[in-house]
Amino acid sequence: MTSFDVVDLIRAKRDGAQLTEEQIDWLIRAYTDGIVADEQMSSMAMALFFRGLDDRELSTWTNAMINTGERLDFSGLSRPTADKHSTGGVGDKITLPLAPLVAACGVAVPQLSGRGLGHTGGTLDKLEAIPGWRANLTNQQMLDQLEDVGAVICAAGSGLAPADKKLYALRDVTGTVESIPLIASSIMSKKIAEGTGALVLDVKVGSGAFMKTHEDAAELARRMVALGKAAGVKTTALLTRMDTPLGLTAGNGLEVAESVEVLAGGGPADIIELTLALAREMVTAAGVDVDPADKLADGSAMDHWRRMVAAQGGDPDAPLPTAKHVEVVTAGADGVLASLDAMAVGIAAWRLGAGRARKEDPVQAAAGVVLRAKPGDRVRAGEPLFELHTDTEAAVPRAVEALQGGWTISATAPVTAPLVIEKVS
Amino acid sequence: MTSFDVVDLIRAKRDGAQLTEEQIDWLIRAYTDGIVADEQMSSMAMALFFRGLDDRELSTWTNAMINTGERLDFSGLSRPTADKHSTGGVGDKITLPLAPLVAACGVAVPQLSGRGLGHTGGTLDKLEAIPGWRANLTNQQMLDQLEDVGAVICAAGSGLAPADKKLYALRDVTGTVESIPLIASSIMSKKIAEGTGALVLDVKVGSGAFMKTHEDAAELARRMVALGKAAGVKTTALLTRMDTPLGLTAGNGLEVAESVEVLAGGGPADIIELTLALAREMVTAAGVDVDPADKLADGSAMDHWRRMVAAQGGDPDAPLPTAKHVEVVTAGADGVLASLDAMAVGIAAWRLGAGRARKEDPVQAAAGVVLRAKPGDRVRAGEPLFELHTDTEAAVPRAVEALQGGWTISATAPVTAPLVIEKVS
Repeated sequence: MTSFDVVDLIRAKRDGAQLTEEQIDWLIRAYTDGIVADEQMSSMAMALFFRGLDDRELSTWTNAMINTGERLDFSGLSRPTADKHSTGGVGDKITLPLAPLVAACGVAVPQLSGRGLGHTGGTLDKLEAIPGWRANLTNQQMLDQLEDVGAVICAAGSGLAPADKKLYALRDVTGTVESIPLIASSIMSKKIAEGTGALVLDVKVGSGAFMKTHEDAAELARRMVALGKAAGVKTTALLTRMDTPLGLTAGNGLEVAESVEVLAGGGPADIIELTLALAREMVTAAGVDVDPADKLADGSAMDHWRRMVAAQGGDPDAPLPTAKHVEVVTAGADGVLASLDAMAVGIAAWRLGAGRARKEDPVQAAAGVVLRAKPGDRVRAGEPLFELHTDTEAAVPRAVEALQGGWTISATAPVTAPLVIEKVS
Repeated sequence: MTSFDVVDLIRAKRDGAQLTEEQIDWLIRAYTDGIVADEQMSSMAMALFFRGLDDRELSTWTNAMINTGERLDFSGLSRPTADKHSTGGVGDKITLPLAPLVAACGVAVPQLSGRGLGHTGGTLDKLEAIPGWRANLTNQQMLDQLEDVGAVICAAGSGLAPADKKLYALRDVTGTVESIPLIASSIMSKKIAEGTGALVLDVKVGSGAFMKTHEDAAELARRMVALGKAAGVKTTALLTRMDTPLGLTAGNGLEVAESVEVLAGGGPADIIELTLALAREMVTAAGVDVDPADKLADGSAMDHWRRMVAAQGGDPDAPLPTAKHVEVVTAGADGVLASLDAMAVGIAAWRLGAGRARKEDPVQAAAGVVLRAKPGDRVRAGEPLFELHTDTEAAVPRAVEALQGGWTISATAPVTAPLVIEKVS
């Protein structure tokens, strides 16, 4: 492989030039191998924040990251595969009902997930609230479960795109996370390496999301869809609203319980709506002609959930842990709950113990927030707005503080906006 | 001292905010102490490249760097002090005749210098061509020599602005050197810490200079002058042209010989012109009413040179080293030398052994380029344009290659532009 002077490449990008395929391939490889130093890659990342990567550069960059690791191959399965990725939101437990629902439609779902950091929870943290459930599977176990059950939610192995792992950790401490091309390539390198045949992206937009504006979310969606298609993955994206939490719970075990409600035919309307919308995208992209609503209604989604949990050592009938302390926050006035800020609820749940500040911190299975009202609901002074669940009572005051100013009560009902804003394909 | 999260500061600057005095003080101190990591400071430096520092931030930044080290104090001397800094050019040996000339006018010159890296030579490298001369003095030796001789050119100790030393080394490998506020603060932190009472800046502009455009050079000059004045140093700047080499030599011993010619009353017109222009600025800023031209004419500048060299162990009468090999490059046509690119000559001299690629490389005392013609001179086909001096004959072909395309011969004389473009004060 041709070798380059990394300072020349940094200065070229800094001054607005496009990098060649050879330059990007070398850069990613040399960084992964420790030839390009962290302080060089971080100034490059900041130059990229300002200068961006055009479509050709981004595709090369993403492929170079994929090529630093292994690629999984699901082509031997008897079913087509489809996966989903969400850019993260408060109360976003959609993966839990979605994976078994899509499996029930005859599509295999290889959902390689992560743990939570900050105000949004991680899918693995949620499932670990189920007694006995384990996140770590070998590649063979994953393949066997996909063939037998049709759905697996497990930890992404360190073999997929190791360059991304190293680069993301660097960006996290150098103020260079918020770059749309770098976000797109971080997500898509792992999803393409994972080997799924189809992919649906849930790109959140709003005050509780990483992308605060419609423009940024649409740009991120467009770039990820282009990367997926270029790699031969049938990729679409839904832009969905994330101003208020999804469903009525934020927290690990609390979200599992709500997911099971949805699979049982109940649950909050927004969770059902988004689960079905994403399931339809996945099933269609996989080329299967089944309506997911039927599979939710006839109990086969619940059946796949139970088998999926059991296949990974979990007991689907075991009671979920409950918190040692539950505090209630009440409304201060009569009226209609006009707004409820997702970020405030996410931070409150995090402080109660549902999330972690550092990668190595443990999380509490039972901690989190239960909403007793959603925007549009009538509320009365003195009646409950939130339940705060935690094993560490001392955490309550700071959680209450996080919620302060996070909701408004008005005389009239708020204008409701659709949850699914648009499709990018 | 208040402590900050460096990622917050990087993101704030990245997104266009001004940093507070407390934030900048903490950042520079924490970086010097190793609390802020190199990869964090390099992304901050790249953010600064794009976002800049306003005048208040720059002043705070520079003071914070000064405060990481010692400050010298020349207020006990019987004479006023004045120093000069040049941003670097090819054939720029002006410090050598300038320091003794200004000393001869009754102004003490504490010239703390560096070594060369890249295509421009370092003042210490040049003086080390003189047998016996030593660059390293203690602070007390420097003070004694300033009192006795009035001029000292020596190595800057590591005690001055250590933050700058660390930050400059980082910028050099991370593509973040070319930031006007960071350049201004790097130069001025050392000059202010050095304790000079007056300072004249020679800011080069042109193809052989660091600043390629008049606009950038004027901006750098304006910001450095503002920093100097704010610190109580009488500071002015001259913008001077650096498209073609200064004088007829580029190389260590070769430039010493040319400097001695100037002190002896001869030498190239451009060296005399710039030396006198800078000397007048320094003498005036120091509040002394003497015309440096008189001190050059009456031999007292030469006298001070001899005393300055001898005080640092050098023998002013010793023959300078001569190169083992001298090659001549000839003109290919009759006409007038219309242009001669400083960068080409600088790189040729560097490749011949006058400069170093890495800090730890040695330099050759006798290597370099002698110009046999300057722009405006008539040349004839087959007659010498350059002499290439080196101890390593194998270096000649790459030096010749560096010169290719570096000059033009035309039928008519070039339009000559003034050497000193303007004064910034």
